[in-house]
Amino acid sequence: MSSVTGDKIKLAVFGESHGEAIGCVIDGLPAGLKLDYDRIYCDMARRAPGRDSTATPRLERDIPHIISGVLDGVTTGAPLAMLIENENTKSGDYERISDVLRPSHSDYAAYMKYGGFNDVRGGGHFSGRLTAPLVFAGAVAKQILKEKGITLGAHIKRIGEVEDRGFDYNSIDRALLERLTSGSFSVIDESAESEMRAEIARYKAEGNSVGGEIEGAIIGVPAGVGGNMFDTVEGKLSSLLFSIPAVKGVQFGLGFGFAESNGAEVNDGYEIKDGRVSLITNNNGGILGGITSGAPIVFSVAVKPTPSIAAKQRSVNLKTMENEMLEIKGRHDPCIVPRAVPVVEAAAAIALLDILL
Amino acid sequence: MSSVTGDKIKLAVFGESHGEAIGCVIDGLPAGLKLDYDRIYCDMARRAPGRDSTATPRLERDIPHIISGVLDGVTTGAPLAMLIENENTKSGDYERISDVLRPSHSDYAAYMKYGGFNDVRGGGHFSGRLTAPLVFAGAVAKQILKEKGITLGAHIKRIGEVEDRGFDYNSIDRALLERLTSGSFSVIDESAESEMRAEIARYKAEGNSVGGEIEGAIIGVPAGVGGNMFDTVEGKLSSLLFSIPAVKGVQFGLGFGFAESNGAEVNDGYEIKDGRVSLITNNNGGILGGITSGAPIVFSVAVKPTPSIAAKQRSVNLKTMENEMLEIKGRHDPCIVPRAVPVVEAAAAIALLDILL
Amino acid sequence: MSSVTGDKIKLAVFGESHGEAIGCVIDGLPAGLKLDYDRIYCDMARRAPGRDSTATPRLERDIPHIISGVLDGVTTGAPLAMLIENENTKSGDYERISDVLRPSHSDYAAYMKYGGFNDVRGGGHFSGRLTAPLVFAGAVAKQILKEKGITLGAHIKRIGEVEDRGFDYNSIDRALLERLTSGSFSVIDESAESEMRAEIARYKAEGNSVGGEIEGAIIGVPAGVGGNMFDTVEGKLSSLLFSIPAVKGVQFGLGFGFAESNGAEVNDGYEIKDGRVSLITNNNGGILGGITSGAPIVFSVAVKPTPSIAAKQRSVNLKTMENEMLEIKGRHDPCIVPRAVPVVEAAAAIALLDILL
Amino acid sequence: MSSVTGDKIKLAVFGESHGEAIGCVIDGLPAGLKLDYDRIYCDMARRAPGRDSTATPRLERDIPHIISGVLDGVTTGAPLAMLIENENTKSGDYERISDVLRPSHSDYAAYMKYGGFNDVRGGGHFSGRLTAPLVFAGAVAKQILKEKGITLGAHIKRIGEVEDRGFDYNSIDRALLERLTSGSFSVIDESAESEMRAEIARYKAEGNSVGGEIEGAIIGVPAGVGGNMFDTVEGKLSSLLFSIPAVKGVQFGLGFGFAESNGAEVNDGYEIKDGRVSLITNNNGGILGGITSGAPIVFSVAVKPTPSIAAKQRSVNLKTMENEMLEIKGRHDPCIVPRAVPVVEAAAAIALLDILL
Repeated sequence: MSSVTGDKIKLAVFGESHGEAIGCVIDGLPAGLKLDYDRIYCDMARRAPGRDSTATPRLERDIPHIISGVLDGVTTGAPLAMLIENENTKSGDYERISDVLRPSHSDYAAYMKYGGFNDVRGGGHFSGRLTAPLVFAGAVAKQILKEKGITLGAHIKRIGEVEDRGFDYNSIDRALLERLTSGSFSVIDESAESEMRAEIARYKAEGNSVGGEIEGAIIGVPAGVGGNMFDTVEGKLSSLLFSIPAVKGVQFGLGFGFAESNGAEVNDGYEIKDGRVSLITNNNGGILGGITSGAPIVFSVAVKPTPSIAAKQRSVNLKTMENEMLEIKGRHDPCIVPRAVPVVEAAAAIALLDILL
Repeated sequence: MSSVTGDKIKLAVFGESHGEAIGCVIDGLPAGLKLDYDRIYCDMARRAPGRDSTATPRLERDIPHIISGVLDGVTTGAPLAMLIENENTKSGDYERISDVLRPSHSDYAAYMKYGGFNDVRGGGHFSGRLTAPLVFAGAVAKQILKEKGITLGAHIKRIGEVEDRGFDYNSIDRALLERLTSGSFSVIDESAESEMRAEIARYKAEGNSVGGEIEGAIIGVPAGVGGNMFDTVEGKLSSLLFSIPAVKGVQFGLGFGFAESNGAEVNDGYEIKDGRVSLITNNNGGILGGITSGAPIVFSVAVKPTPSIAAKQRSVNLKTMENEMLEIKGRHDPCIVPRAVPVVEAAAAIALLDILL
Repeated sequence: MSSVTGDKIKLAVFGESHGEAIGCVIDGLPAGLKLDYDRIYCDMARRAPGRDSTATPRLERDIPHIISGVLDGVTTGAPLAMLIENENTKSGDYERISDVLRPSHSDYAAYMKYGGFNDVRGGGHFSGRLTAPLVFAGAVAKQILKEKGITLGAHIKRIGEVEDRGFDYNSIDRALLERLTSGSFSVIDESAESEMRAEIARYKAEGNSVGGEIEGAIIGVPAGVGGNMFDTVEGKLSSLLFSIPAVKGVQFGLGFGFAESNGAEVNDGYEIKDGRVSLITNNNGGILGGITSGAPIVFSVAVKPTPSIAAKQRSVNLKTMENEMLEIKGRHDPCIVPRAVPVVEAAAAIALLDILL
Repeated sequence: MSSVTGDKIKLAVFGESHGEAIGCVIDGLPAGLKLDYDRIYCDMARRAPGRDSTATPRLERDIPHIISGVLDGVTTGAPLAMLIENENTKSGDYERISDVLRPSHSDYAAYMKYGGFNDVRGGGHFSGRLTAPLVFAGAVAKQILKEKGITLGAHIKRIGEVEDRGFDYNSIDRALLERLTSGSFSVIDESAESEMRAEIARYKAEGNSVGGEIEGAIIGVPAGVGGNMFDTVEGKLSSLLFSIPAVKGVQFGLGFGFAESNGAEVNDGYEIKDGRVSLITNNNGGILGGITSGAPIVFSVAVKPTPSIAAKQRSVNLKTMENEMLEIKGRHDPCIVPRAVPVVEAAAAIALLDILL
């Protein structure tokens, strides 16, 4: 396993869901950056559970405690280490089921990898809770990108059958991205929110869960960033986006829509606009040959339904090696998509910053 | 840019479409491997243009010439360097258009990155031709995987409107994969071939191009391989799959299908089968928490239509900085999907081998 | 800057001398390792100041507090995060001199790198105190190596004019290494200790400091480990040994002694011994062509005198940009060589483990 | 094994002494660099055997043949691949001894690593001949450094008992470095050359070989480059310097001389000079806390005597597993130190460039 990523900015994430604390170390940050704690707390809150009626009622305060790399609120250039204490963890909910594999969770894969030594309480190091340090690091990355004129935001593109309007690939407004990154239920067409909440409520009522899609956009990245072959912007972003639990697909621009399209219809032509080369359309989502084209970077990720549902499920007991029906107790998110929005932004911001530096 | 990838097996790809030669260096191969040249030549031929009526008539022989790392057909453990000479390159077709940006190609992004110093003839280092060394390396990787009991293959899942049957996620036959990796137009349901060829012919006739989807499967990988967080199997594979020109989306198992699904419907339960833990379904495509579950790894990639089409397209002349209609001469693939199948296999094989070693 | 190292085991070190805490994250440890806390505490104590009359009287307890990756004393396979709280830090000693560059310290280089934003109190992230997490990680690495039959130890080869007997390159006893790694003033010839202490006392008395040399040995490493070219065992070890503040030279076997030697005299011949190929001599220090030969790995490092001395020194005030005599107050080690022995062992153990895994 | 190095500039070296060709791939070079072929050929000639009476009479022309990444003499930004054909290789000289281990060569270590599959003819991938591509890459790196105002050169500090004058650490002239990098027997005090040649001739006459020391200097590097902890300039340079066959020690500034020194004597004070902070002395060799201080970087490496000597040596036959006296036929360098000078420069230049970019 590696919980360390990055070339120029190295991020190491640690902790287990029911351990003493989780946290991260960020190495390679520029010195002299005055941290914008408001933005950090805002993103942490957007991800935290219990803030929104769609989320699990567990209230985690998730206050990041910085223990090195920052002096008087300003980065020193030394590694920034950050801790979030774990609290309010009712491990009883989990412990009694630890021998029975939870379907579609990492339990079995992790058991085979770690020979049963891994901390299974609450998913351990595999818990969605470990996305909190990712969001912290992402907030710092977003701040540095902002200073370079780059803005990044994401929204809920779909929950089950309900869709939000997608980004207009070639014309994405900074104000829109700022609105999306300020709220806890980010949608472009605000009328989609109530329908989406209804969709989630419906699955919650039946003890079920539902998946969705999150679409992200990045504006302000100049043309010529990234590399072809093994350093494509697509490859770098996707590698980090797949580090988010529950993400099972990543696409750029039209993505899988390209499969049914033809060149005459989807090729992105050029024109001179205000004296500069400009793309007429942006079906490639801002990336050509692995390198940015100067148009907005647009991507989306598929999020699977939370595996923890109320229904009894067919499973296996690892101790008895017999089939056993599993009933998962406790309260679980019927839909993690809204809370995953800042996580998607964080993963993209961290990846992009590492490319840019 | 980096044309070097891998941790344990490092692959460096070099060359330009219209330069003297292209090739690669593979570092970290085990010593004592007797290369299976038949399999290597077979994969090279599956990728090469001009072999099949759907492909461009340029006939490139693509014979890999090994210059180090192999003695009497057996790897020595030293870096394996391989060259493929370029021949039959009618650069005239390209040269006259080098100042006018080809829509949806890498031209503009590359121009901005390299300040105009990059070799633009035939796409230079961005040419699809550079997938030839990738296929070579993939063939070697596949051979090593095979010795570990792992088989890998891909097929054309879709071309435009025409679909092939998908893999049965939980029951994929070695014989099927071997058949797919032997032919030049790989489909599961052989009756799909003629319809697909007709679809391609239709676009070719109108000087247009068409996209598609390629689905890959890997069987024989034990449970417990890979890592969560930043070393997920999904992240590693996607990172390399996006190195293939024209790939714009990557998904695992149900992928984007998860967005419209619910947990009760798609959760993968367990059962004891032949005394061992076994997955009842495999909607997660063989990966849980970033780690293999022992079920087949199933993924698919979206391939955009070849950008080179016969129709005049709106573009810009970089010298005059004026709008200019572009008409691309020469012969171009109306659909690269069939030829991209061995490239997808290669990228997946190289990524997986690097994870496994 | 990067405070992250390693390929298979990744170590991230963080903290500043006068911050809240220092610590590290170790990623990639095998699951199921029962930590030997006695050995860890022993190594931490060997490095800690104030334990020995030769060292600075600051008493730092340096108790490692593990916050993740270990459950019931056994590694889980998740990243191991460890904290050491800072205490007893009289920052007053340092603050008044922070504008005047301390000769031979990192002050000026760090100022230029971080534009003055780095934490200068006590050296900040450059402090020798940051070797405490290194020693912790080294103790864990040594334990894993021990389970593979590999033993590692170092001794004070020289302090100023006083020399200890060197290792017998071709015949190093496990018992000797175990004795060296148990004490706080490690010498082979125990009679050297009093002379060395006298040498240190002499420099201490005059407010001066003195350098030295530390020699390390590793036994039990099989032949064939490492790589030639850019993965030499020498390169890997030296890279980490130079991460120790004050180390200014690294050599293997005869090292700089080779410069005055001839082949007939120093070539290491072979013989059959107990039915196996065996080296007759080991002037190459266990490494040939970058790869282990099966003979003990023997290396040594040069340690410069502690830069902090009592005498007034010529320096510069960065604020006034004028020459200014500097007088360093506070208590400082006249010789860090004895305390650096476990740090050298740690660096070597971490590097070797990363090569071996 | 890894024959790939570097973060921003990746260098892959390949080939075997008696294979078809050797070469390298350099990835990450800036686009638009007009290669200075004169300097490249000059460095290649300085390293090549047979040019100087001290070297082996094998005449290798070592003409680098660039096959990609350069168009009309200017880098394109794509990977630069380069080949040198092998010629004039009398493999007969080597083949008859391949079962008997050559003392102090890599034979035994390589045999154990590769299980006997490695190409043993002439040392295969371990041959000193593989330093030719290193010198090529170094010449390119030196050119890029030169454009940044950085000059680098090395000289023979010692051969056996004969010493050249060392660099004046704090005052190194660009003209001196340019002279050193132009000749094939680089010494500071030109009167040392004849004595050194006599020393070599003496060992040659008796069929013996002799070691030496090479000292390098780099001027023009600004203060603040590099990192503390695991990215020290010392660590990066040493890691690459140890990739040179026969190098067994690396030191910076006073290096091992520090071991016998005291702080009052060797501390490097500061003064204001021409309005800027300046070091009064430079015993630390231009690096403090792992970071450049702005003073010249000065380092030296120990080179062991060529292992191939005429005398019969005690060895072992791997086939018979019996002791066997070995007599090495053919012509071998009595001293590789003069030819190793440009190799040392190359390794330092490649490492430094990777730090600087």
